Amino acid sequence: MARRSAVDSGLLFAGDRIATSRAISLVENELDGSEEFLRTIYPKTGRAYRIGITGPPGAGKSTLTNKLAQYYRRQNLGIGIIAVDPTSPFTGGALLGDRVRMTDVELDEDVFIRSMASRGSLGGLSKKAMEAADVLDASGKDIIIMETVGVGQSELDIAGAADTTVVVLVPESGDSIQAMKAGLMEIADFFVLNKADRAGAEQAVMSIKMILHFKPASAWNSDVLKCVASEGKGIEEIAAKIGEHRAYLEQSSELQRKRRLRTESRIRELVADKLRTDFWSEERQRILSSRMDDVVSFVTTPYDLAHELINNFRNQ
Amino acid sequence: MARRSAVDSGLLFAGDRIATSRAISLVENELDGSEEFLRTIYPKTGRAYRIGITGPPGAGKSTLTNKLAQYYRRQNLGIGIIAVDPTSPFTGGALLGDRVRMTDVELDEDVFIRSMASRGSLGGLSKKAMEAADVLDASGKDIIIMETVGVGQSELDIAGAADTTVVVLVPESGDSIQAMKAGLMEIADFFVLNKADRAGAEQAVMSIKMILHFKPASAWNSDVLKCVASEGKGIEEIAAKIGEHRAYLEQSSELQRKRRLRTESRIRELVADKLRTDFWSEERQRILSSRMDDVVSFVTTPYDLAHELINNFRNQ
Repeated sequence: MARRSAVDSGLLFAGDRIATSRAISLVENELDGSEEFLRTIYPKTGRAYRIGITGPPGAGKSTLTNKLAQYYRRQNLGIGIIAVDPTSPFTGGALLGDRVRMTDVELDEDVFIRSMASRGSLGGLSKKAMEAADVLDASGKDIIIMETVGVGQSELDIAGAADTTVVVLVPESGDSIQAMKAGLMEIADFFVLNKADRAGAEQAVMSIKMILHFKPASAWNSDVLKCVASEGKGIEEIAAKIGEHRAYLEQSSELQRKRRLRTESRIRELVADKLRTDFWSEERQRILSSRMDDVVSFVTTPYDLAHELINNFRNQ
Repeated sequence: MARRSAVDSGLLFAGDRIATSRAISLVENELDGSEEFLRTIYPKTGRAYRIGITGPPGAGKSTLTNKLAQYYRRQNLGIGIIAVDPTSPFTGGALLGDRVRMTDVELDEDVFIRSMASRGSLGGLSKKAMEAADVLDASGKDIIIMETVGVGQSELDIAGAADTTVVVLVPESGDSIQAMKAGLMEIADFFVLNKADRAGAEQAVMSIKMILHFKPASAWNSDVLKCVASEGKGIEEIAAKIGEHRAYLEQSSELQRKRRLRTESRIRELVADKLRTDFWSEERQRILSSRMDDVVSFVTTPYDLAHELINNFRNQ
């Protein structure tokens, strides 16, 4: 019998901070009962609006997140923030290491902030971030901001997890054409040029706009907004743009479609996880170990042994 | 019936360049017949010695690779180079975009160079790089150098794929203690400080050495070598160190153990791939689609549907 989850879902639904914090730890660390817990809270999800903020290191994502959170707080909305923070062996700690501490909002009872870092699998990290978003959603937050630094896969995953994805660039991000090439144009619902008081800002905006012209026509038009997040300039316009995008998604039933796709890929991940766990039973671990001599001595091949193991699994 | 592979394994075993190139394309693009081909060549693998070179962007990995390849060519050894090149949406193209073109060696018949880039799954990329290494191995190359830039998971994967892993740093890499924290000390068989003619080199070497003292005692002692790869300085010493490590691995039967573990994790990946392919049959795709309405309307949960699908798979 699995140890029961130590988190009271009733307290979570009531918005209790400690229960929320414990619930996120439960799913982040994949403790016993975490799946059962996620199943329990699932019917309470789907109410919060999820915003993804991504961009290169140093673009000021956490400052922008901070200011947006303050803005929403003034509207009396409950905010959850998840900062997804893939680590690199070369930067050691977090790529968001330059993270601005969110002192302006972090003492506010109605803002819940959680950083999630992980060495290794980014795929696993984004799954956990989505689960943490579900927890915040079930706790009654109105807005969930998911912030991630752009390295490889993670920003694409975050785009899948968000209703509106904002890509933050700075004048120094330089070759925006390069940035566009690699899928950013597809994931950005709109762009924000932060630090727009610096040299080169106008030029950066122009070149992003130029590239957006090549985007296939759609009912939603991506755009570029300017801001100076550290001074709070342009925040209101960004929030308005998010609201505009939300209204577009809701009216076009695009929101429903997006969320359905998200849930579908979640189910595929759950299946893959469960298959892996079920597959590597003690019996098949033993078969693998005992047949390894044959593989390394070329009596059989990795490919044949893999098939043998699969047949064992499916014929049980 | 699967279309037969267009690559003649006999030509590959004879070291034919075009056959080698086609064979790598076959596995890189996962064309029909690629698994069958890998099965065929498997008994011809295991002869080449595999060297992994990793480090942060700008550390001079490709220059070092180039010079090492030249060195080995002078020993009349056949060389294969695989440059694993994860792309980032923010840098657009390749992170190895600053790659030094390997003009010194690339026209040499006995050096085979292949760059592998991929947007998206790094896991998939490292699998393909290992398969490409198998192709080069079967083609009769003596030394295979696998070069990757350090972002997230890829350098750890490359360490799993190599017999000897060299981590390249430069004085500017800065906080080496940070770098050490995140698993580099574990993967590096030794360190190379490139651009050692620059300011701060001695200090960088000292701090890496200091940290290596904290490494648990082992029969193999990691070390730090200095080089100026662009001028060819220190290359011979690096090659000697690689040779020393190889001798250590062979004499301690550590090489056998390492390669066995590598093959084992390869089999686990093959199993995971095959499970995924077998699982998502048309029938189960249909079940998923038809039950999605129930999930989004909270009649069931993603967790229950995943279990339902798994049961369907296992009870067939």
